[in-house]
Amino acid sequence: MELFTYYRSTSSYRVRIALALKGLDYQALPVNLLKGEQRGAEYLALNPQGRVPALRTDGGALLVQSPAIIEYLEEAFPEPALLPGDAETRARVRGVASIIGCDVHPLHNVSVLNQLRELGHDEVQVNQWIAHWIGQGLAAVERLIGDEGFCFGDWPGVADVYLIPQVHAAERFNVDLGSYPRIRRVVALAGQHPAFTQAHPARQPDTP
Amino acid sequence: MELFTYYRSTSSYRVRIALALKGLDYQALPVNLLKGEQRGAEYLALNPQGRVPALRTDGGALLVQSPAIIEYLEEAFPEPALLPGDAETRARVRGVASIIGCDVHPLHNVSVLNQLRELGHDEVQVNQWIAHWIGQGLAAVERLIGDEGFCFGDWPGVADVYLIPQVHAAERFNVDLGSYPRIRRVVALAGQHPAFTQAHPARQPDTP
Repeated sequence: MELFTYYRSTSSYRVRIALALKGLDYQALPVNLLKGEQRGAEYLALNPQGRVPALRTDGGALLVQSPAIIEYLEEAFPEPALLPGDAETRARVRGVASIIGCDVHPLHNVSVLNQLRELGHDEVQVNQWIAHWIGQGLAAVERLIGDEGFCFGDWPGVADVYLIPQVHAAERFNVDLGSYPRIRRVVALAGQHPAFTQAHPARQPDTP
Repeated sequence: MELFTYYRSTSSYRVRIALALKGLDYQALPVNLLKGEQRGAEYLALNPQGRVPALRTDGGALLVQSPAIIEYLEEAFPEPALLPGDAETRARVRGVASIIGCDVHPLHNVSVLNQLRELGHDEVQVNQWIAHWIGQGLAAVERLIGDEGFCFGDWPGVADVYLIPQVHAAERFNVDLGSYPRIRRVVALAGQHPAFTQAHPARQPDTP
């Protein structure tokens, strides 16, 4: 498989964790977002949305959007499972993933921050915007995840795949995590897990 | 089942379509977002994120976030299927759903628009913001869906569940759909399908 990725992209980071947790080999094809490579004709012909990540499967299909790619990996490579067995618990895990994937990360995506800057906002206001949405989302996640282990148990799963990159972004934007002891516990556990360290933005082929 | 819903909420509308396509009965429990009922203590005790929709299953579990609820319905009530059979095609369908669910709708959610107003933007600027994100997202969706039928074939599925409420929002915000003939084709088909008309914001118990 080939992964179109950018080292610092939150949603690329998610997919890298899922690939690593499943022990899947892939070739990283970096797309430099700062240089605008995602808007180049070559990349747009592959992915008309012009975003990363995108996954080329061994069958040659080009899959876009991290939530779709992560579900694909779970279906095509079921072991180790990143979702639990019963439908209601799976929905609880996906609920946490969706809070992060729909209501937090999209609001501090680089394209949104640039749009705010175009509307005349300075970095102080941009950072307040970021902190508002991250704070609101992480507060809900803190209430919904479990009391020990990873988000939902002894082994990392889809909720952790979303949470760890989101916390990395929060730290990059200096959002205080003091009110989220459960989240901090999961972050500490993930920091000792090879799949999470391997997928980290600091260790990618395109890391500066 | 019980669905916490608001007639005009885009993500509640998605879940209503999925329930209707599967022929599932449920009790609608309206949450009046204009009156702030989603932030009341009673509702927050159920759903700490304070958003709709939320689904109470027959087993009593409270599920949040429309993407998680829709996947739950597909797993718990497999027929009729809203996702195709093979993993790569499922990923294509979910990719379109995620473009709408992650990169379009969250950016014109009422809480985001209110945040823009708090930052001093007038309705002209707010509408430009909305049109920017809807236009960018629908342009990608137009490239990714099929040439006939619903988004991905003869029968409606998860991509249609996301697309129809998104187009309804686009029309409410006066976004021009002239450049999206495939999307307009799907909208015309859905307009004749009882599950979509039954789920429409104009026909809910809390519709004013």
